[in-house]
Amino acid sequence: MIKPTTNTKPGLQMTLPTKKEGSKKATPKEELVGLGSSVLSDIKKGTNPKIELSVRGLSNVTFDKEAKTLVLGSKTAQRYFFNVAHAKKFMQTLEVAAISKSLLDVQKHASLRDVFYMAKRTIPGTKTNIVDEQKETDKAIEDLELITNFPREMLQVNANKMGSVAGKVVVEDAGDIIDWSKLGSGGWSIPSNVEHITFKKVDAKYVLYMEKAAVWERLHEDRFWEKQNCLIMSSQGQTTRGIRRLLQRLSTEHGLPIFVLADNDPWGWYIYSVLKYGSITLAHMAGEMAIPSVKFVGITCDDVVKYELQKHFIKLTEQDLARLKQMQNYEWFAKNKDWQRQFKMMKDFGAKVEIQALSSRGISFITERYLPEKIKGQQFLD
Amino acid sequence: MIKPTTNTKPGLQMTLPTKKEGSKKATPKEELVGLGSSVLSDIKKGTNPKIELSVRGLSNVTFDKEAKTLVLGSKTAQRYFFNVAHAKKFMQTLEVAAISKSLLDVQKHASLRDVFYMAKRTIPGTKTNIVDEQKETDKAIEDLELITNFPREMLQVNANKMGSVAGKVVVEDAGDIIDWSKLGSGGWSIPSNVEHITFKKVDAKYVLYMEKAAVWERLHEDRFWEKQNCLIMSSQGQTTRGIRRLLQRLSTEHGLPIFVLADNDPWGWYIYSVLKYGSITLAHMAGEMAIPSVKFVGITCDDVVKYELQKHFIKLTEQDLARLKQMQNYEWFAKNKDWQRQFKMMKDFGAKVEIQALSSRGISFITERYLPEKIKGQQFLD
Repeated sequence: MIKPTTNTKPGLQMTLPTKKEGSKKATPKEELVGLGSSVLSDIKKGTNPKIELSVRGLSNVTFDKEAKTLVLGSKTAQRYFFNVAHAKKFMQTLEVAAISKSLLDVQKHASLRDVFYMAKRTIPGTKTNIVDEQKETDKAIEDLELITNFPREMLQVNANKMGSVAGKVVVEDAGDIIDWSKLGSGGWSIPSNVEHITFKKVDAKYVLYMEKAAVWERLHEDRFWEKQNCLIMSSQGQTTRGIRRLLQRLSTEHGLPIFVLADNDPWGWYIYSVLKYGSITLAHMAGEMAIPSVKFVGITCDDVVKYELQKHFIKLTEQDLARLKQMQNYEWFAKNKDWQRQFKMMKDFGAKVEIQALSSRGISFITERYLPEKIKGQQFLD
Repeated sequence: MIKPTTNTKPGLQMTLPTKKEGSKKATPKEELVGLGSSVLSDIKKGTNPKIELSVRGLSNVTFDKEAKTLVLGSKTAQRYFFNVAHAKKFMQTLEVAAISKSLLDVQKHASLRDVFYMAKRTIPGTKTNIVDEQKETDKAIEDLELITNFPREMLQVNANKMGSVAGKVVVEDAGDIIDWSKLGSGGWSIPSNVEHITFKKVDAKYVLYMEKAAVWERLHEDRFWEKQNCLIMSSQGQTTRGIRRLLQRLSTEHGLPIFVLADNDPWGWYIYSVLKYGSITLAHMAGEMAIPSVKFVGITCDDVVKYELQKHFIKLTEQDLARLKQMQNYEWFAKNKDWQRQFKMMKDFGAKVEIQALSSRGISFITERYLPEKIKGQQFLD
């Protein structure tokens, strides 16, 4: 169900000899079987079994100016079975591949923590565990994402579940038809895995994504999505992979603009940066995760001035200042005059402002004035 | 919509002179207007305006053996306007009462953070702010809960939004009819405020509440709620007030047994303790929050032995041990042999076990064996 993306980089390709370069037609199960066959073929030939995969991490992550996302470069590495430094990781990768294959066989999904416990056991006749910590299976899953070119969700491994959505969209999911505009004050609870959802009807014109569930409840009570014909979507703090994939599918499959509503602080802006450009740890998933068309609808430092929110200033912490400096130097922000201006203004303020500060102007100021003004006037930061 | 509860204690009564003791017929707005009238009457009489309310905190919290919950005692305190130590809190209480009244007038809800920003401003002609920190408005809201005898949700102030639910229940909420059994893999997103929900149909026989969203997704994918004819409900970590109220309403209004599925660790057990007996900070809300009939369905130390989960032991931390010791001494656990046995076993283990450790026995071991066995055999801890 993952559509071919335009920014497929060499690093995202399957590099095993059994698979044609650039081919995307294989299913996740075929990819996993291919991995097994390749290792088996090495064994039969009497050669040292190996897995080849792209190097992850900063040294192989670049900003793709054309795709406008972080992507993995073309550096690859070989992992050999007969190599003391590689053997354990080799085993772990194959163990997790087998777990993923078994989940695909029964069509069930596991959490990252489940996979850890499923892999955790002592090798008979030894005192060595296959894995001792969850980060080992997590890494193996990331490796499998690279090897198979499928996100972990398609390998039946789910991330965290979080967040709500409301608006004029009808989906089919697990045999149910769900109308996101008819779910009372709660809305639809977003699953950790949204790959299997089918969009039956998309009437909304854009998506407003916010980091705070309390703001979502404000907008929902005011039926903002109905008045504006949009979708409102929220997590609580963390933007989960489920939310990112849902936003990306609405963007690529239905052409909906995505606007991010976040605090006027380095952390809120960082949420926007990750949604739009991707992150170093998920650079290999940029095609499925990053949404280059995302725009920022607030709160900007200009909004702070325009709506007189200075009295609600909260002093920047050391961590805030460090994050601000880091973002100022990001390649994708470095030549962006609008954002550099924001970074400078915040530094001059020495302070940040929360989105709820708008409530000091009235409980529905955000839905009746702030958002309509900004959206009608297309006052977005890009 | 809050029904009169059986364990109403003196501390929960409105103590203002304008109100008949024990009367519960007033609406939240009438209670707030009553508070204002009482202060106004003091002013007109030329007496020092006062608010009388129950003392909160450890010194006035007792365990009610009959109701089997923590409750507020009968100690009350007076807060006077003409008292340097009281004046600011007096003003804050009235300010937040006015905000709550204005929210009731327009029938809108605010978050705790919103209320803080709505109250935060400088008193004209002075350099004094009405409030400087959110904890001041939070305290004022708790005071108003005591004064009006209504939970903050009825005063239009919402807590956090979190969690999902699925199963055979139909509710009406905000004009929509929502069938919790037809919401795909996501389920219904539980609102922060569930006071306004009407139950149209309750076919489920019990509620299974779990602390982890990943476990909820496992049970949901296996359609556990359908096979067992139950409701599955989950938060992510924290049990919000919305979830607690929803569980309490299902328990008291529909007589559904509530079972708690949590980790085998002091934190998981503490979640159970708070759900069942209430907490010190919310002792004044025990009637609306605590659910004395709640039972614990696991993971117990006996389960650890029975299902051979010892190999997944995680060493207890200093904090775990402190929490364990604290619970051992709780009045409601002190004479409970079953629980004391559990505390001792865990201490002897020196270790805890996560619920996902069951996945080491198979991805659906929890839904196909662990839970059916425990529920059929009524192997609950009470």
